[in-house]
Amino acid sequence: MTAKLHFVPLGGCGEFGVNLNLFGYQDQWLMVDLGMGFADDNLPGIEIILPDPKFIEERKEKLLGIVITHAHEDHIGAIPYLWTRLRAPIYATPFTAEVIRMKMKEAGLLEQLVLHEIPLRGSRKFGPFDVQMVNVAHSIPEPNLLIIKTPVGNIVHTGDWKFDTTPVEGSTTDIAALKKIGSEGVLALIGDSTNAATPGRSGSEGELAQSLRKIFLRYPNRRIVVTCFASNIARIKSVAMAAHGAGRVMALAGRSLWRMNEAARRTGYLKDVPPPLSEREATAANPGEIVIMATGSQGEPRAAMARLATGEHPQLDLSPNDVVIFSARAIPGNEKDIARVQTNLRAMGVHVVTDHEEFVHVSGHPAHDDVVDLIQWLKPKVLLPVHGEVYQLQAHAKIGEALQVPQVVIPRDGDVVELTPDGARVVDEVHHGILCVDGRKIVSANDIAIRGRKKLAELGTVMVSLALDTSGSLVSDPAISTLGIYTEAQQTDGEAELAARVIEAVEELDDRHIFKNEAVEQAARIAVRRAVNASHGRKPVAEVHVIRV
Amino acid sequence: MTAKLHFVPLGGCGEFGVNLNLFGYQDQWLMVDLGMGFADDNLPGIEIILPDPKFIEERKEKLLGIVITHAHEDHIGAIPYLWTRLRAPIYATPFTAEVIRMKMKEAGLLEQLVLHEIPLRGSRKFGPFDVQMVNVAHSIPEPNLLIIKTPVGNIVHTGDWKFDTTPVEGSTTDIAALKKIGSEGVLALIGDSTNAATPGRSGSEGELAQSLRKIFLRYPNRRIVVTCFASNIARIKSVAMAAHGAGRVMALAGRSLWRMNEAARRTGYLKDVPPPLSEREATAANPGEIVIMATGSQGEPRAAMARLATGEHPQLDLSPNDVVIFSARAIPGNEKDIARVQTNLRAMGVHVVTDHEEFVHVSGHPAHDDVVDLIQWLKPKVLLPVHGEVYQLQAHAKIGEALQVPQVVIPRDGDVVELTPDGARVVDEVHHGILCVDGRKIVSANDIAIRGRKKLAELGTVMVSLALDTSGSLVSDPAISTLGIYTEAQQTDGEAELAARVIEAVEELDDRHIFKNEAVEQAARIAVRRAVNASHGRKPVAEVHVIRV
Repeated sequence: MTAKLHFVPLGGCGEFGVNLNLFGYQDQWLMVDLGMGFADDNLPGIEIILPDPKFIEERKEKLLGIVITHAHEDHIGAIPYLWTRLRAPIYATPFTAEVIRMKMKEAGLLEQLVLHEIPLRGSRKFGPFDVQMVNVAHSIPEPNLLIIKTPVGNIVHTGDWKFDTTPVEGSTTDIAALKKIGSEGVLALIGDSTNAATPGRSGSEGELAQSLRKIFLRYPNRRIVVTCFASNIARIKSVAMAAHGAGRVMALAGRSLWRMNEAARRTGYLKDVPPPLSEREATAANPGEIVIMATGSQGEPRAAMARLATGEHPQLDLSPNDVVIFSARAIPGNEKDIARVQTNLRAMGVHVVTDHEEFVHVSGHPAHDDVVDLIQWLKPKVLLPVHGEVYQLQAHAKIGEALQVPQVVIPRDGDVVELTPDGARVVDEVHHGILCVDGRKIVSANDIAIRGRKKLAELGTVMVSLALDTSGSLVSDPAISTLGIYTEAQQTDGEAELAARVIEAVEELDDRHIFKNEAVEQAARIAVRRAVNASHGRKPVAEVHVIRV
Repeated sequence: MTAKLHFVPLGGCGEFGVNLNLFGYQDQWLMVDLGMGFADDNLPGIEIILPDPKFIEERKEKLLGIVITHAHEDHIGAIPYLWTRLRAPIYATPFTAEVIRMKMKEAGLLEQLVLHEIPLRGSRKFGPFDVQMVNVAHSIPEPNLLIIKTPVGNIVHTGDWKFDTTPVEGSTTDIAALKKIGSEGVLALIGDSTNAATPGRSGSEGELAQSLRKIFLRYPNRRIVVTCFASNIARIKSVAMAAHGAGRVMALAGRSLWRMNEAARRTGYLKDVPPPLSEREATAANPGEIVIMATGSQGEPRAAMARLATGEHPQLDLSPNDVVIFSARAIPGNEKDIARVQTNLRAMGVHVVTDHEEFVHVSGHPAHDDVVDLIQWLKPKVLLPVHGEVYQLQAHAKIGEALQVPQVVIPRDGDVVELTPDGARVVDEVHHGILCVDGRKIVSANDIAIRGRKKLAELGTVMVSLALDTSGSLVSDPAISTLGIYTEAQQTDGEAELAARVIEAVEELDDRHIFKNEAVEQAARIAVRRAVNASHGRKPVAEVHVIRV
């Protein structure tokens, strides 16, 4: 019998975020990454989503370990929510490990956590899987590409990566290691598709720092605010360098920037960047002498940037002529929140700079030509594009086809991709889905708890209470409450009208029905939904309570 | 006393859509356009929004007329909803008039409508306002720029416009007329800001038709679907020409495309385009011999394109290898709906072409260099950028400042801009806002009817009914219903727990409170909200009914 390896992505193949990849060999499993994602407006009241780990949870005693490629939220963010369901040891390089510990400490789970550090360029054996960490460049310290040697063949799992010959902090991509494994033979390349549809190459952080300095110099005497992802330690360094070059000092605003700054310093990064000023010190400083880095590049309503844009920040106030630079891409789904913050800033008279107008951001992901180079060095038998929506996965697949990779398979969440020395095919689909962080609970996106709220939002609600005596007569007028249907002015009349319709409907019931709660509830429900439909053109969610006295 | 003219935009200055402009002179008013807009997810369950006309409604006997620049929804779409509040005569060129009649007929209001046609290049006097219609190019037949001569000075109100020396249908922009009014003197230019931030010039429809033909030729034997705005009659003609050039015939799918096709033909447009095939004929045709134009370029869930993407179209089915071309821009706020449709199509194996990859769309609005030309020909004393979000208005203002227009004022909805021969200033702010089309009702976006639904969506709801006897004792267990809080599995236990908390809370009430309904309601409400907050981390909307028996 041919040895078979299985690749099973439970998240990240068909959407951005929620990355969770599994490798299985003779029922021994290895997980790579356990990330969160952002909810869109199909999930009202929800901000954070997670991959549903049920498939691996059911065989968690066979899970040998969880290897984390790097510390971005879409690769580690689900750990505080899901790790206690799995309890497999986590393996990560020192900076990533530090960030995971920080997050687990906040969740009150640090004591339970089993976490092993792997040094940079280190390797570790998990049963049949021999995992080697390879340095790549990305927008956070210590991004790793994984070479996974298995009995079936060598797998390269890129994580998030780019080429950058002048990164301002952290490593460049270890091209020699990639060429070496390419010459040894690669069965499958599982690769980052984020920017596969973007022509050319991704830019360099070093060049970006130069550009930021020039932009800062253009606005002497004006306060400058830069917003980016808090985890983008390289960007913090670029901004600090650019600020220094423009005769300014850097301040930080927002809790997650402070936390990431500390985690970076504890693990040996940002060594030559002077300690940033606090929000309070930034307030006191001359506008022309500081650059404030602020959280909230995605328009998050509670982050520093959104508060600055509405004048609600406790320490800092923006003035007309201040300059705000958005140094980040918009994660799909966040466009409107970002636009709202930018509109508020512009309405204040603040000058907003985005990467539409100026070179103020470089991506951490490989563009078309970078992907071509990687495929040519590795010469994989099979290309499996991951980390993207269908559009990006297909763009990545097209590159593979153009380079005549023998087999290109686009995996979707839940697909079981069987890999043999001869190639790959999808042989099964297992349980997969999206979980929502709903206040303190974790709930399936398909559950009534979530779908019910969507219905309420679209239709509004009517609540009816009826008390009936032993003869089946109403003891009093029905109590009616509505929300999301009538305007303030119409509410009293509208509810009185509904009460009248309910009385009619109940009084019409004959003896076979009036003593059955279900029949009374249904009659009242139909009466109110019909009445609202007649006046408003939609049928609300209606709940009826029948009390017998 | 110096004569004063007032310009009051009630919609369209600070957002896309809902265009409503007013001109006032000695308390005589003229309205230009009365358009609708699309709701974003801040307004759950709402699709269509309208400008709040209260300010002019309160002085409707002083409203001399409503002049419509062109038949796009963002300029006419509010007429069926708001015209009966105003009842001022509408003035429009023949095609626009035909579309308005069609909409009012559907709304059952055609009999009441007072509508006068103005011929192309015609003019009409409204008290102190002498209005002349000037041909421009845009993406619909009969777009008009207005020259409004007033006792204070000449106003140019552009409506939507572009330059196009090779339009496939309809007029080019009448440059001679613009230069002429420029030489006579222009007090204020009120101009389209949509693409002011886009560098260069907007493209030509004629060149687009050539490009579409080349793209069609690239896919012999494959079915091609093109989606665009139904009102884009020029695009219908471009697609028909491109189809003919590629040996194909055109079919239409979707009601609004058929309606606009008929309105265009009734008013003399599309004369040399053969009658399109129906959906049924398209099904029967050889895939390589047709091009299907479909409604739904904005991802509208009930339009043809969205149904094709989910396999729910009653007549047509797409197959892998079919080609779908999105020949329209995304109106801000629609990005996610469009992405959903495209993702579904790609998942089916359909090849999706957008204007990111190919030249498949030209804008109907002037880009930077076009705006420069207009300002240079008109040499206005005052520039008032309209038709856009703050970003576009500011970009337009910047162009005016660079060209040294003596005064640039960015008006916002509700601003009263006073114009004298010397210049402009904002002197007041009047009532303005957004109305929602909520089923059959029209409701302010700030009303509890809308805000209540948003609350329900975020928090879920608990309904409690209590029956108390004359001694203040509960007659039976409280009836509890919840929605949007518990999962299906937790619901029974959760509601039982809430009932227990309510019983405790009610039993704790003393004689001073137990006989007051408000006190009992409050105690029960606090008890359930506290309990849900403890388990779920948020406080739901709670309604309590107390029945005395």
